[in-house]
Amino acid sequence: MELLKEKIRTEGIVLSEQVLKVDAFLNHQIDPRLMQQIGHAFAERFRDQGITKIVTIEASGIAPAVMAGLELGVPVIFARKYQSLTLRENLYISKVFSFTKQTESTIAISAKHLHANDHVLVIDDFLANGHAAKALLDLIGQAGASVAGLGIVIEKSFQEGRSLLENEGYRVESLARVKSLKDGKVTFVD
Amino acid sequence: MELLKEKIRTEGIVLSEQVLKVDAFLNHQIDPRLMQQIGHAFAERFRDQGITKIVTIEASGIAPAVMAGLELGVPVIFARKYQSLTLRENLYISKVFSFTKQTESTIAISAKHLHANDHVLVIDDFLANGHAAKALLDLIGQAGASVAGLGIVIEKSFQEGRSLLENEGYRVESLARVKSLKDGKVTFVD
Repeated sequence: MELLKEKIRTEGIVLSEQVLKVDAFLNHQIDPRLMQQIGHAFAERFRDQGITKIVTIEASGIAPAVMAGLELGVPVIFARKYQSLTLRENLYISKVFSFTKQTESTIAISAKHLHANDHVLVIDDFLANGHAAKALLDLIGQAGASVAGLGIVIEKSFQEGRSLLENEGYRVESLARVKSLKDGKVTFVD
Repeated sequence: MELLKEKIRTEGIVLSEQVLKVDAFLNHQIDPRLMQQIGHAFAERFRDQGITKIVTIEASGIAPAVMAGLELGVPVIFARKYQSLTLRENLYISKVFSFTKQTESTIAISAKHLHANDHVLVIDDFLANGHAAKALLDLIGQAGASVAGLGIVIEKSFQEGRSLLENEGYRVESLARVKSLKDGKVTFVD
């Protein structure tokens, strides 16, 4: 998605060879028009797949997921961080290890909103080592639902997330694939 | 907003005389089409006010805020919970006491994205005692920006949030105003 790559080039900040900061349009400030176009791009890729629900994770996955849900005409569920929940019964629960923060957190989805007959599109802002994606897939598996694939806004292709997911048979559609963050510069996969 | 009230009546769950749970379409599962209509309703109320930015708080404020931002053509900033931040410099910081959870949390906005010449619409999912709204207003004040008003999806009118904000001169626009949650039933302000 050329517009997204252009945004990353002009407004992304390379913090290290591992970390790309996109607080200007995705992770803190959000560009709603760009989110609409991202939602459209995901919808195009998964339109005829019989999706019944989108699953994402709070907070940065919500904007792209809701825009995709709007276009596909399906509800969005955002997995919640366990400590932000007021009710703690009847939940699917999984753990995510954050490499950036070196902490483990627990995420949850209410069993009430995800069912065995759902066919799910997973959407997230970043794919790096695949930990968050695998935790979401674990929650979906607990519900007995099936997975159409994963829609990722920015993939760090130099990390192992994509290959881990593809090895397990999942379809991964990333709108921008970052090949390297060397020398303070973003290079994309062709 | 009649459609929203109908959703609350049919899918909202009254947990106590104080607590209304709307996990079915706003706080956990999100109805994207309803969010679009909510965004439209906020845009209608604030269209000619010279808004330059929308400020909300993660996570449940994001969907309605992004839809309003799309229609008003302005960026959205979501205040982040401090523990979720990777960078902690150059921030405006404020504290929010959560009555529901009986805990205090710290929220922040990067000084890079909010400026003295911004004219801000604050959007949030709920207005109860006004603690979250006041923390957001505090952050906006630290930036020296001005406030056009607050757009609230669901107001619990039996709590003091609205009067606190109006007493300080803020315009409050709530799309559904809940008068009472007595006897397990939602009653709206006329």
